[in-house]
Amino acid sequence: MSEFFSTTREQLLSQVRAQMHEKRYLHTLGVAESARKLAERFGADPDKAELAGYVHDYCKCWPIPKLHTYLLRYDLPQDIIEGEKELWHAFVGANVIQSELEITDPEVIQAVRYHTTGRVGMSLLEKIVCVADYIEPQRSFPGVEKIRELAVKDLDQALSEALGGTIAMLIERKKTVYPLTLLAYNDLVSKGITPFE
Amino acid sequence: MSEFFSTTREQLLSQVRAQMHEKRYLHTLGVAESARKLAERFGADPDKAELAGYVHDYCKCWPIPKLHTYLLRYDLPQDIIEGEKELWHAFVGANVIQSELEITDPEVIQAVRYHTTGRVGMSLLEKIVCVADYIEPQRSFPGVEKIRELAVKDLDQALSEALGGTIAMLIERKKTVYPLTLLAYNDLVSKGITPFE
Repeated sequence: MSEFFSTTREQLLSQVRAQMHEKRYLHTLGVAESARKLAERFGADPDKAELAGYVHDYCKCWPIPKLHTYLLRYDLPQDIIEGEKELWHAFVGANVIQSELEITDPEVIQAVRYHTTGRVGMSLLEKIVCVADYIEPQRSFPGVEKIRELAVKDLDQALSEALGGTIAMLIERKKTVYPLTLLAYNDLVSKGITPFE
Repeated sequence: MSEFFSTTREQLLSQVRAQMHEKRYLHTLGVAESARKLAERFGADPDKAELAGYVHDYCKCWPIPKLHTYLLRYDLPQDIIEGEKELWHAFVGANVIQSELEITDPEVIQAVRYHTTGRVGMSLLEKIVCVADYIEPQRSFPGVEKIRELAVKDLDQALSEALGGTIAMLIERKKTVYPLTLLAYNDLVSKGITPFE
């Protein structure tokens, strides 16, 4: 993976491990594993997918005030700052992995940026990381097994399921939904790519 | 109600009745009744609310090709034409009630236009018709009784419930969600006005 960043895998994982508690780190390893498999299945670069998995939640466990400081430092959009705080780690993370981990690959950076919200017109790597985040081995919500099986057959349908499920979950929890997520979901459904039965 | 339209109530109801099957007509009468009560409770004009209830679904039972013809005739926005067909009757209806029923009151017209989608910054009458459409006596979904009770206490919270419930239902049915509906829901939730427990 040396072509994508300037440290060894061990150095990278050590840096990632230092940012989060153990459960989040196990999730991180799971996403990297699932993303690599999906990349091999769907023809993306497995090394990039694994790397994106390792770093996708780099800032997830940062305290909210620290995330807020970085949102302002990077001059991130107002609708992110005013949106749910759960989104902040993805947009801050896309910048921080560049400055702290020296990751420069634009595909990896965008996959981190949009792994939580999705967006219309996602790249293959963005889809893979978003879906891997939903189905990695540590996830245990009802029906996840079925989604894992279906994800290896149809990545777009798995993405539609992931986005639709995320929107429904947010409403159940009385949270706002980032508009980009709805537009991404609408775009798939309007093309006939609907969540699973 | 003569100040709002040029026919008698009997003439109006006869015209409304001719556009729809009996179940939809009973729903229409229910919305008018609920809207009048909500208007009396929250300080809107009861006559306008009742009138908006009578005409809100004027085009709901029109055949899809007829609705499509009217969408083009009225030069309605492309995102409506490309959106779910279930939305068409509201936007077409807002125009047709002017031409066929000679309704000129802008508040009533807007209440018809946005009764299905909602929007950010709804007027009191728009909220009333939207909520009345959700809780009128013919509705029988699980939990509707609780919403009926709560709607007379807090109209905005009932609206948040109605919009959130609509979005969740659309996703469950694998439909797209009109972005205005999400923005209206987000606007309420970001102000702390969340759906009921």
